Amino acid sequence: MRVGTSSYRSIWFEPDQPECVFVIDQRKLPHCFEILTLRSSRDARNAIADMVVRGAPLIGATAAFGVYLAARCGEDLEAAYQSLLASRPTAVNLRWALDRQFSLLQTGPADPTRALLDEALRISEEDIQVNRGLGQHGLRLLEEVHREHPDRPVQVLTHCNAGWLATVDWGTATSPIYLAHEAGMPVHVWVDETRPRNQGASLTAWELGEHGVAHTVIPDNAGGHLMQHGMVDLVITGTDRTTRRGDVCNKIGTYLKALAARDNGVPFYVALPSSTIDWTLADGIREIPIEERNGDEVSTVTGLDGDEVRTVTIVPEGTPVANFAFDVTPAELVTGLITERGVSTASEEGLMKMFPDPGA
Amino acid sequence: MRVGTSSYRSIWFEPDQPECVFVIDQRKLPHCFEILTLRSSRDARNAIADMVVRGAPLIGATAAFGVYLAARCGEDLEAAYQSLLASRPTAVNLRWALDRQFSLLQTGPADPTRALLDEALRISEEDIQVNRGLGQHGLRLLEEVHREHPDRPVQVLTHCNAGWLATVDWGTATSPIYLAHEAGMPVHVWVDETRPRNQGASLTAWELGEHGVAHTVIPDNAGGHLMQHGMVDLVITGTDRTTRRGDVCNKIGTYLKALAARDNGVPFYVALPSSTIDWTLADGIREIPIEERNGDEVSTVTGLDGDEVRTVTIVPEGTPVANFAFDVTPAELVTGLITERGVSTASEEGLMKMFPDPGA
Repeated sequence: MRVGTSSYRSIWFEPDQPECVFVIDQRKLPHCFEILTLRSSRDARNAIADMVVRGAPLIGATAAFGVYLAARCGEDLEAAYQSLLASRPTAVNLRWALDRQFSLLQTGPADPTRALLDEALRISEEDIQVNRGLGQHGLRLLEEVHREHPDRPVQVLTHCNAGWLATVDWGTATSPIYLAHEAGMPVHVWVDETRPRNQGASLTAWELGEHGVAHTVIPDNAGGHLMQHGMVDLVITGTDRTTRRGDVCNKIGTYLKALAARDNGVPFYVALPSSTIDWTLADGIREIPIEERNGDEVSTVTGLDGDEVRTVTIVPEGTPVANFAFDVTPAELVTGLITERGVSTASEEGLMKMFPDPGA
Repeated sequence: MRVGTSSYRSIWFEPDQPECVFVIDQRKLPHCFEILTLRSSRDARNAIADMVVRGAPLIGATAAFGVYLAARCGEDLEAAYQSLLASRPTAVNLRWALDRQFSLLQTGPADPTRALLDEALRISEEDIQVNRGLGQHGLRLLEEVHREHPDRPVQVLTHCNAGWLATVDWGTATSPIYLAHEAGMPVHVWVDETRPRNQGASLTAWELGEHGVAHTVIPDNAGGHLMQHGMVDLVITGTDRTTRRGDVCNKIGTYLKALAARDNGVPFYVALPSSTIDWTLADGIREIPIEERNGDEVSTVTGLDGDEVRTVTIVPEGTPVANFAFDVTPAELVTGLITERGVSTASEEGLMKMFPDPGA
């Protein structure tokens, strides 16, 4: 999507620099737009672990390129696989992408490095197609609201960043929004700032702003009030992991917005590429382990002070903090799952009907 | 309550300095403990408007002392009343305390200045008694949990700061907690950081820490997850304004926690002095105007960087933000209202039974 006057993806490869893969350093956004070069599986692993890149689909693509870089550098591929797999605990796309690379290797390609590169590029292209596809299905939901209220913007609330920065391009939750914007539909996005890492305030606000989509950043506490007062037409979030019965494991706080949506009759949609579905899981609350991240993310906030990016401590010295990175929104709170094949009910029946070939 | 090795109130008067009223500058907490001197109604008004002091009961006490200072300085009392009344739009205690002072003046006291001082001191003492009293009623709720689970701390979640800093002493939501702590009951408090002003992270964490009560600061997004996993025994919050049918207008985000509590069978209590009840209102969502505050509170965060208190910007330059300060939790989500006369159901019937003399 657009950054200034150029078009970018979140990860890319330049044929004349085959030893490199390029990513946007998302830790520096929104205050600094910086491109980082990955040259080994260790670089890829660190980029994932340190959240240079984040978002399930982009993590998958980065891991896939990581295996390519491992092969190119002559690394032990099994060790690279294990190291990449351990870089983040929650994202199901990580294992999915790594397994795609290793399945490919088992076919015994003539030029494994070249084959791994092609597969990583294919994973990236597929991600773009999938996101654009699910965006088309989501767009219809926005069009319905727009037909009903042609005189005002369609009001969407989103949590965290399920934007193009979380994928290779288009994003998941944002894809319908970008498509609506490109079709000339007036749309306005309420952006949850998404503490503790502020991905909404720093990433979603940045990418919507760069692309010219109207938006307003709100504290995570505000969404319930907005919904009580009819200021939200629908909620669209992403998901890091979706169980086969439609439970959604997404950024901490998603569940609270789903509760508020139900209480106020606001549709709550989750946009996802089907690669995010973990067919081995049913009950998300009981079965999905929730990553606990470093407490510094809670006790500090990073932002711009003049020209300097600084980190300030917001709690009294020595205060204990807890940092659960995700929560699980049970399927019964989810109006629908926006996938590349259409909008499914959040149920095993709905998902199995839409994906009769799970894992294929 | 305790600060270091001393005991403090949030507002106090020293007989040997009758031209002064003292408050803790809560904007500087938790990084700096500074006492501010008020010498005029304008000082009191500014202290309220600038949130040097906040919390409905403390706002009321500060306004009452403000009228005393106005009389002492020979100010126009009617102008002082209007100016103090306009300092914050939501707190019902503000008008209540001001009206008490003006009712008193209408009795034609021999020494009006002295009478206004005595009344302000009485308002302060009453607040302390009321908070201690409601704390005793709330303590029984904690004791019930403790009897059921004697082998582990009672887990309370609270939002914003309804602590002693929000009142003259004891606090409202924290009063049962302090009483439990003093009685030797193990209790642990999950403290919502409470964006955008972070009163939880900066004030509640500070006062619990200074008093020695175990606590953990969490992002506002985390409470639902904790409740899903049985990590919260009960929620206790304060309220800025309570309607006669029990709707609760409190810090933005309270409503989301109430929804999560209901969804997980966790009792949701609101602690309040009855002065916080606005008997003229029934439907809080429709009738209570919600204060919108400066957007800078959303787009920036203030904290400590080394020895310096700094404010950093967390959104891209020029990003639109919205800052609704309160939301309304409808009575049906409230398990009970902890008042100085006992725990009432959140209903007109319950409140009328407990307070048959509303406004008396």
